[in-house]
Amino acid sequence: MEIAHPYLLFIGDVPDALAAKTAQGIVDWRPEWCVGQLRYPGCKADLGIPDLSVTAARAAGVRTLIVGAANAGGILPDHWVATIVEALDAGMDVASGLHVRLGSVAAIADAARRNGRSLFDVRHSSQRFDTGKGDKRSGMRLLTVGTDCSVGKKYTALALEKGMRAAGFEADFRATGQTGVFISGRGVAIDAVVADFISGAVEWISPAAAPHHWDLIEGQGSLFHPSFAGVTLGLLHGAQPDAFVVCHEPTRTTMRGVKHPLPSIQAVIDLTVRCGQLTNPQIRCVGIAVNTEALEESAARAYLARVEAEHGLPATDPVRFGVEPIVARLAREFPRAG
Amino acid sequence: MEIAHPYLLFIGDVPDALAAKTAQGIVDWRPEWCVGQLRYPGCKADLGIPDLSVTAARAAGVRTLIVGAANAGGILPDHWVATIVEALDAGMDVASGLHVRLGSVAAIADAARRNGRSLFDVRHSSQRFDTGKGDKRSGMRLLTVGTDCSVGKKYTALALEKGMRAAGFEADFRATGQTGVFISGRGVAIDAVVADFISGAVEWISPAAAPHHWDLIEGQGSLFHPSFAGVTLGLLHGAQPDAFVVCHEPTRTTMRGVKHPLPSIQAVIDLTVRCGQLTNPQIRCVGIAVNTEALEESAARAYLARVEAEHGLPATDPVRFGVEPIVARLAREFPRAG
Repeated sequence: MEIAHPYLLFIGDVPDALAAKTAQGIVDWRPEWCVGQLRYPGCKADLGIPDLSVTAARAAGVRTLIVGAANAGGILPDHWVATIVEALDAGMDVASGLHVRLGSVAAIADAARRNGRSLFDVRHSSQRFDTGKGDKRSGMRLLTVGTDCSVGKKYTALALEKGMRAAGFEADFRATGQTGVFISGRGVAIDAVVADFISGAVEWISPAAAPHHWDLIEGQGSLFHPSFAGVTLGLLHGAQPDAFVVCHEPTRTTMRGVKHPLPSIQAVIDLTVRCGQLTNPQIRCVGIAVNTEALEESAARAYLARVEAEHGLPATDPVRFGVEPIVARLAREFPRAG
Repeated sequence: MEIAHPYLLFIGDVPDALAAKTAQGIVDWRPEWCVGQLRYPGCKADLGIPDLSVTAARAAGVRTLIVGAANAGGILPDHWVATIVEALDAGMDVASGLHVRLGSVAAIADAARRNGRSLFDVRHSSQRFDTGKGDKRSGMRLLTVGTDCSVGKKYTALALEKGMRAAGFEADFRATGQTGVFISGRGVAIDAVVADFISGAVEWISPAAAPHHWDLIEGQGSLFHPSFAGVTLGLLHGAQPDAFVVCHEPTRTTMRGVKHPLPSIQAVIDLTVRCGQLTNPQIRCVGIAVNTEALEESAARAYLARVEAEHGLPATDPVRFGVEPIVARLAREFPRAG
């Protein structure tokens, strides 16, 4: 599955910016792929790129309409269907991150067939995977892991891609979640894969590569999250990372959606090493990425300095202070793969 | 999903006994549910129960035809369809453990609709689950875990059900694999659930119960198996077991389907405790179940004695020597739940 760009980002009439966060993530990380946004009257989000009709977008070379908005329940509002059909009739593919499958709407399925276009439901995997094998693959791999869900694992992997490329590394982001798939044009929403194939799907996402090449694999969940740890462990085994970065949000007290307290950064490092050694005995932690948004700058700097001293690892906020300390650590630890 | 018994076991013309092992497992554990077998000429398996036609089985009160045979690739041979339709026309439900969905065969879907009968595809989950919550539920739980796949986790849980009931415990087997679902008439093939819902599905399988009641939950895979550890971890978190039994096959050198060596029993105990504490801080190992089939009796006894001494835990072969030592340990460790 490879989603063709450039994109037209369709956000309909979403009620707030949060409902368009998938589209916003694409604009943030792939501005050069985003020709315009398509909004309905009353839309309460603005991606800050030109408003375009389907016709204008097609004339500008757009190849895929991205349904980059979430409605309550992940459903597709009836009044959005006409725009999707219009895009297919104009010769675009359509990709969606909604729970409902595009092809389950008859008018959309018909239009795709009629025009010979592709429909991508990134939340659903129609791909067939093998079970994971656990064999060592060539190439280098880094995985972002977390003390919780939604602590910046995707952001950190994308920031590392940018930073490592700037430092001369050959590095590619590998998506394991829906927004990441839109940003990279490929990948698999790993939490939607059938349980038996979690690690196999990750092996497929990150195949054997040149010895010095880095795959920067987007992590999911947490080994300490009672809802999703199975996904996290399968992802760790399939990724067989040489290096990992722990992502953390220091003001959160309970894990997302449950009553469990957050684990310590050290507990995450220890369990990730212990479990990760199964498919890569050389696994090691190379840094800590902290979302310090809730802290004042001086408090953020003090917190990072403390974490850095405590763990003997570079600690940074990728958004606020960049990923250079982690890139420098990688260059030092893996001199032949820099 | 509750599969109505008694059953007629349909094994068609399978080429050997192994291809009928699901049906054999049902006969072994629920002989009172198995009225007869339905075989075609040339069938190379024999379940040791009466051969019955659909008509005769129906007259004997059969409520469900079980497609208890595996063909290469899990497909449904065309020449088996007529028997399935005949069963539906006779008023039976049909349940299958094949990869192909019964309802995807038009003649079967039509017959089910025409007769108002149910089709059960136990390898596929049409059930909607919540994500796991990790909240402590009332009731006691025991999980069988393993050093590898296929080391007797289902057998051990079923043997414990029998042994614990005989000793006066209130105990129910909880199935997480297809054969187990047929044996208990309910449950979920956990490896077929979408990754995000592994632990949630296990919470559904083993809901809150009376304080002294034991759920004996069938384990899957191994925390050390690079293909399936994600399933195993999600199952562990969802099961939140008070007690677990490690299942092991001592002559195996590499894990099933991969090149990785088997972990030690101690490594499995340690990692199960460490990860299991997330949803049950009281988790503990209560015994070791060894498949000693490949050893002579004296060697088997010597091996078990050594394992028992090494770990300070009862070690037995449930098939050869019974589960009484483990049941006795449970009675001692959990005096109020016996």
